[in-house]
Amino acid sequence: MAAQRVLIGGEWQDSQGTKTFTAFDPKTRTALDENYPVSPWSEIETALQHATAASRMMRNWPAERFAAFLENYAARIEAHSADLVAMANRETALPAAPRLKDVELPRTFNQLKLAAQWAREGSWKTATIDTAAGIRSQLEPIGPVAVFGPNNFPFAFNSAAGGDFAAAVAAGNPVIAKGHSSHPGTTRLFAELAHAAAQETGMPPGFIQLIYRTSHADGTKLAAHPQLGAIGYTGSRSAGTQLKTAADAVGKPIYLELSSINPVIFLPGAVAQRSAELAEQFASSSTMGAGQMCTNPGLILTIAGEATEKLVEDIAARLTAAPVGTLLGEGVLDNLSKGVQTLIQHGAQVMAGGQPGGGTGVCYQNTLLWVAGRDFLAAPEALQTEAFGAASLVVVAQDAGELVQVLEHLEGNLTGCVYSATDGSDDVLYDRVVTVLRPKVGRLLNDKMPTGVAVSSAMNHGGPFPATGHPGFTAVGLPAAIKRFARLACYDGVRPARLPATLQDKNTTGTLRLVDGKWATADVAAK
Amino acid sequence: MAAQRVLIGGEWQDSQGTKTFTAFDPKTRTALDENYPVSPWSEIETALQHATAASRMMRNWPAERFAAFLENYAARIEAHSADLVAMANRETALPAAPRLKDVELPRTFNQLKLAAQWAREGSWKTATIDTAAGIRSQLEPIGPVAVFGPNNFPFAFNSAAGGDFAAAVAAGNPVIAKGHSSHPGTTRLFAELAHAAAQETGMPPGFIQLIYRTSHADGTKLAAHPQLGAIGYTGSRSAGTQLKTAADAVGKPIYLELSSINPVIFLPGAVAQRSAELAEQFASSSTMGAGQMCTNPGLILTIAGEATEKLVEDIAARLTAAPVGTLLGEGVLDNLSKGVQTLIQHGAQVMAGGQPGGGTGVCYQNTLLWVAGRDFLAAPEALQTEAFGAASLVVVAQDAGELVQVLEHLEGNLTGCVYSATDGSDDVLYDRVVTVLRPKVGRLLNDKMPTGVAVSSAMNHGGPFPATGHPGFTAVGLPAAIKRFARLACYDGVRPARLPATLQDKNTTGTLRLVDGKWATADVAAK
Repeated sequence: MAAQRVLIGGEWQDSQGTKTFTAFDPKTRTALDENYPVSPWSEIETALQHATAASRMMRNWPAERFAAFLENYAARIEAHSADLVAMANRETALPAAPRLKDVELPRTFNQLKLAAQWAREGSWKTATIDTAAGIRSQLEPIGPVAVFGPNNFPFAFNSAAGGDFAAAVAAGNPVIAKGHSSHPGTTRLFAELAHAAAQETGMPPGFIQLIYRTSHADGTKLAAHPQLGAIGYTGSRSAGTQLKTAADAVGKPIYLELSSINPVIFLPGAVAQRSAELAEQFASSSTMGAGQMCTNPGLILTIAGEATEKLVEDIAARLTAAPVGTLLGEGVLDNLSKGVQTLIQHGAQVMAGGQPGGGTGVCYQNTLLWVAGRDFLAAPEALQTEAFGAASLVVVAQDAGELVQVLEHLEGNLTGCVYSATDGSDDVLYDRVVTVLRPKVGRLLNDKMPTGVAVSSAMNHGGPFPATGHPGFTAVGLPAAIKRFARLACYDGVRPARLPATLQDKNTTGTLRLVDGKWATADVAAK
Repeated sequence: MAAQRVLIGGEWQDSQGTKTFTAFDPKTRTALDENYPVSPWSEIETALQHATAASRMMRNWPAERFAAFLENYAARIEAHSADLVAMANRETALPAAPRLKDVELPRTFNQLKLAAQWAREGSWKTATIDTAAGIRSQLEPIGPVAVFGPNNFPFAFNSAAGGDFAAAVAAGNPVIAKGHSSHPGTTRLFAELAHAAAQETGMPPGFIQLIYRTSHADGTKLAAHPQLGAIGYTGSRSAGTQLKTAADAVGKPIYLELSSINPVIFLPGAVAQRSAELAEQFASSSTMGAGQMCTNPGLILTIAGEATEKLVEDIAARLTAAPVGTLLGEGVLDNLSKGVQTLIQHGAQVMAGGQPGGGTGVCYQNTLLWVAGRDFLAAPEALQTEAFGAASLVVVAQDAGELVQVLEHLEGNLTGCVYSATDGSDDVLYDRVVTVLRPKVGRLLNDKMPTGVAVSSAMNHGGPFPATGHPGFTAVGLPAAIKRFARLACYDGVRPARLPATLQDKNTTGTLRLVDGKWATADVAAK
């Protein structure tokens, strides 16, 4: 069977590559029919040339052009929901409903619409005008963006439709999408719709391009290429750090979402007060999406006591009773098995699960592990190994002091949750905990679980390394996420007619600007 | 003579180090009297512990506290101008007046006052509130910041008083200043004033600390340390990339200003129209501060022709006639000599200067080199070697097409200047040039030279690598520069009383915030 075509320079064309791969059905553990090409370097370089040409052609284009594309594309996705859901369900085994159809797909097209809205609004540019000095500056498109999507969100983080894609386009950039190998068909469907939208809205040929896979060497070559503006990557820590090393060596911005175990801290008063509620919330969050969530709660921190023992037993029982979800693929299963083994090798004891199986197709039992605080402190790095899936480690500290010591050894995470008593009895300890925890997590939660990343302007889906590559940026939340794909461009003494529209005296776009030290949407007053 | 003391944990104390160094007087080429210690790792680690304690103590402190410190410190600097100017003049040979006394010192204390003003104003936090989702976020202090200052601005970029220092403090962070070895006495005077200001304004002991020098190994260890929040570095490309590699490997934000040759493009119409003016402006900019400016114009791009030949001859004559400044030190002289030799080895011909000497103390003749466009294209990397000092390379392209080809090979730069005719005759070429140039430079100028970095909110003293490490940030220009030393902190379902002041419903600080999709300074309305 001929391989699927790649989208390069505005044309669906046969790949120049000779190697191919297939996707798998995780439910039946069998290969799917379609073949997808591995793109050779020559093809990637051609894509870069087209993207560069597009970037130059779109220089100083009004935000309206990108907004129109995003809205046209969003409408096409909505109209093709059934095809997308069927394909993604086949490739990922994620439930067609409610997960794919009712949650992730609406989230995806709504995010594209929001990106259009914030592209128009334009405050993310922080347009700044100093009339006395004759200097003006703003954030502008960074250039071609390569988006590497993850396995676990075939829609919302898809390289050709998800959050990084939306943000890169809203900033005014062309995108080279590198589909994830576990759902190439889903990515192809998105790229077809994006291409149609790009044609209808008059975007240049190199605006949206798609390749399915590259060699590792070519992936790093792409990440370091002088014509690439930036990289958005969501996926494994090992592959991501390889790309990061290549990009960093040439000072190329790379935005990563790598690894996070999302500590959940149950303070004693909360355990005493509402143990069953905690257990229920945790078990539900831990097994959501078969645990394949960036914000899956992989670590529980508690203080020893009878109530804690009961809570842990309760969680173990709930996890054992809960259905076991199908994993996205054999690679996920392998990594999960290895992750759990690493935790066991460093002293963790199995309270629930701990073995492959328990459900349909590729699967692994819902798992809970346990370790004493002092043992965690003996091997803090190994015991923070991510076991991506429905597997969590409970650390039981002997007292508050040991709990804080454990916190001191935590790496960076996307989230950190603290459950405390409602009567104020945990408040002193809460302060001690949060003083150490706050700088280590992108999002701090009170009395709720980390899964469920709301598409909110105030969301931070980011955090210190290894959660991401830079703690100042978020992958979700508009307009903030747009700024990742921009560079600061200053105009010093540039003749007025040559300035971009958003920096001209007359504020035709109504953008919020910092003019002579004051935020305003008004025109610059004539002198 | 005993070594000068380091400032650690709020105390001036003897260093634990056994090695020392001295500064030099570039005018007499002799060592100065004072000894300064090389701090061993144990001392750096102690400083990190104090800085971490300070960071935690200052968690959620109002901006007013940092603003008060900055203003107190600025006033002390102003009051001690004479001492600072005398010391810096002795250590750097930069003219006491107007350069140090009338330009750089006022710039320095005014920048601290501006930082206080923008710390209070707070819009840089992009405080964002989503009342429906119960999520709030803002940029918050990133943690202890290590500042490595450069040799060429003993005041304005001093690690204990300059732009990075001001921005790091305005964001709410403690600073560990690593003084530059060429002006340790100047840095000590600043740190004494900063320490007094910190004591008077009630800042914690680890807020401002000073060390003078570390081994290279300890410098990289510091850059990668888990307790460090971020690094600000201005200096050589080689030392900077070593720090960058160490910081990048652990995902630590590092803001660098490394290397920039600042292309100046003279389009044919401008040359025909005002050749003498161009020559005068260029020669003046090239020799400013003995050429030791980050924005020194090291590269001229032109198109061949009789007028261009005359212009180049005119510039050469003016450079030959201009006084030769004293360089900052022997290291600068060595690097400058080597840089010029590299250019010559790759085909550049000397039009003026090209040898050490010509002035008082450590010096090198004002230098102009020449190369044809096709020769540049044969060795574009070598011919972009920075020759830090008053040395520039003219590239003469045979036609507009070759000029654009040369532009395609340019690395990232802080600035790019384009001079064009005022009658519109260069406008078509201007567009071709700027389409390629714009993404490669942080600041685009029209009809003016790049030296002179105005302290303006709209300034971008940044640009793509190797000018800096990330094209989205600037080292000069408030409030933008503050954002470098912040991380994004999100509060999801956090109980109202536990929120930072700037994220509470009542906007007691009057900060501009994005509330439910609208920018406002009002309180969040009760529901």
